[in-house]
Formats: sequence, structure tokens, C-alpha cells
Amino acid sequence: MGSPVRKRNALVNPGMDAHLKAMGRTADYSQQVCSVAATLEVVGDPWTLLILRDAFTGVRRFEQWQERLGVARNVLAARLKSLVGHGVLERRAYCERPMRYEYVLSPKGRDLYGVLLTMADWGDKHVYGCSGPMHYVHKTCGHRFSPVLACEACGAPATLPELRLEAGDATATVGEALAEAKG
Amino acid sequence: MGSPVRKRNALVNPGMDAHLKAMGRTADYSQQVCSVAATLEVVGDPWTLLILRDAFTGVRRFEQWQERLGVARNVLAARLKSLVGHGVLERRAYCERPMRYEYVLSPKGRDLYGVLLTMADWGDKHVYGCSGPMHYVHKTCGHRFSPVLACEACGAPATLPELRLEAGDATATVGEALAEAKG
Repeated sequence: MGSPVRKRNALVNPGMDAHLKAMGRTADYSQQVCSVAATLEVVGDPWTLLILRDAFTGVRRFEQWQERLGVARNVLAARLKSLVGHGVLERRAYCERPMRYEYVLSPKGRDLYGVLLTMADWGDKHVYGCSGPMHYVHKTCGHRFSPVLACEACGAPATLPELRLEAGDATATVGEALAEAKG
Repeated sequence: MGSPVRKRNALVNPGMDAHLKAMGRTADYSQQVCSVAATLEVVGDPWTLLILRDAFTGVRRFEQWQERLGVARNVLAARLKSLVGHGVLERRAYCERPMRYEYVLSPKGRDLYGVLLTMADWGDKHVYGCSGPMHYVHKTCGHRFSPVLACEACGAPATLPELRLEAGDATATVGEALAEAKG
């Protein structure tokens, strides 16, 4: 979770990177020291989580996303490029003449399914009122899947009062951690 | 999860509501028919998830958020107002002379903890490399808490290959569902 921001961090940062402005981003989380901000720095752009939502349902090609989302082509291209740069999507050639690429979730990208499933569950319950436009069925038990968070260590479901926040070891800003992660 | 957008939905929608522009939003998800988009419509503004992150750690007052996030005061005020309007935060008077308010998570807001915990976990693992700046300890078992998604119906941990996407009953756009939810 979070810890206080280390440096100045305005919503519209006059010095924020040009590539973020081109992406339509109005917030720069790179100076935060926080794992939530770290995730938002990678997937918090407008439309990015919907691009990933579609990737989880099997969308792999530029034209499919463009048709589903209706975003401008340059905007979609910038997001796909960023997700490839962060290692969330992998670009693969599927046709050589003409050269065409598709975009597939990497293991790092697939690991975002918890974020998307908890978002979908909240939207189902608190916006759509229990039943949304789509849902998952748990094949093993046959029931509609609604996620509860369980503890990886002991397997028991955990709610917030059973959790205690502690300081960790990391002191890097999001920007520093991302630079390190990219090697 | 998602289903195709019903109407035109460009990244920068010339007709998008003035209040979204004032919030720094460059994307309008209201025409999507999707529970992920529904959640993003409520909490997808820049900084909003960090405001909520801080609320989960006990922040309740304007000045505390302002100091931690460094956002402009009008920007923070707009987000708090929106979160109160959506019923995610509740505004309570804590001082009468002068009149001062604090903002507390409602049950609907507290239900976002799964979104924030899965985001923090992904940032820990894939940006910070396992150990982030803060973490939760599961008090019951004493181990560091890393969330796994379990099925509410049967209690078993579920991964994506064990889930099957199905169409649900809802056909409303996010905007229609939000209007209905607000009554």
C-alpha cells in the first residue's frame, strides 16, 4: 500500500514527461513511494484497463480493440506500445507480408486478473446492483464466481480488520523502481 | 467484465460532461456496457484511487490528503465531492465553529479494499520486486498478507483457467446504471 509522497507531486505537473501528456495522462505517480501508485503508473492511463479487460477475453489485434473501444488510433497505439514497454503485453508477428503484429498478455500481464476481477465485482455489486452485463462462472463448483480475498499463506479468507499495515523495506519512488524493473 | 461498447466512445469526447473535464478526466466510460468500466467511472479519475488508498490508512481530512498527495486544492475538492456524490465517502461535520467536515469510507467505499489490495500486490511483485514500501500482515496467521482470489461460493482458490465468461442480464450502459444506482 502507500506511504507519503517523497517529493512535490501536483496533479498537472508542468515538468511531467511528454510521453505521459501524449498518452492523455494528467497525473504523474512516479514520485510516490507506493505499490498502488506503481500499478497505476503502469496501467492507470485512461482506457488501459479496458484494453487489458479485452485482452483477457481474447482480443489480440489492433483493429479489434479499435472497434470495441472506439478510441483514436494514435491513442490506442500509444497505450499498446507502453504496455509492451512495461512487459505487460508481448508483441508477436502473425503475418509477414504485410508485416502484422498481435499483442498477447505476458505472465506479468495475466497477473493483473485479480485487479480486473475485483473491479468487475465492485461494479456488479455497487453500480449494476448484483448482476452485470457479463460474469464468470467457477467451472469447478458451477456457481457464479464472486471473488473473496484469501491469505496466500494460510488460505483463510481475510477482511480488512484482520490485516495490519506495516512498513516494508523498499524506499524507492515508483519511477526508480520501474527503472530498476526494466533493467 | 466487459461487453462491446454500445455507442461511439472516443478518448476525448467533445460532448463529454463539463464536470469530467474539470476533474482532469480525458476518458468517458459512461457509454460502455461493462462492470469494469462502471468501477472506473466512479474511481478511475487521476488521484482518486490514491485518495481512497489514504482513506484506508485512516486519512479523513482535506489537509491531510493535500499534504500527502500534493494535489491542487480545487482538484482534491472536486474528487472528494464526486466520491461523496457516488456514496463512496460520507461527509461528516467534526467541528461546528468554524464548520469543518471530514470524509469517511462508506460500506460501499470499504468494499473497494479488494481493488486496492490486488493493485498493491501487483505493484509489490512486478514493480518493486516482491517487497514494497508497505505491506499488510494477516493478524490471524502472522504472515505477510498476499491476496489470492477465492470463490465466494465454494471457498476454493480460483485462477483464470478455472473461470468461464458468460453473458449476464444487464444491458444498461454505465451511465444508465449509475443514474439508477443513485435513484
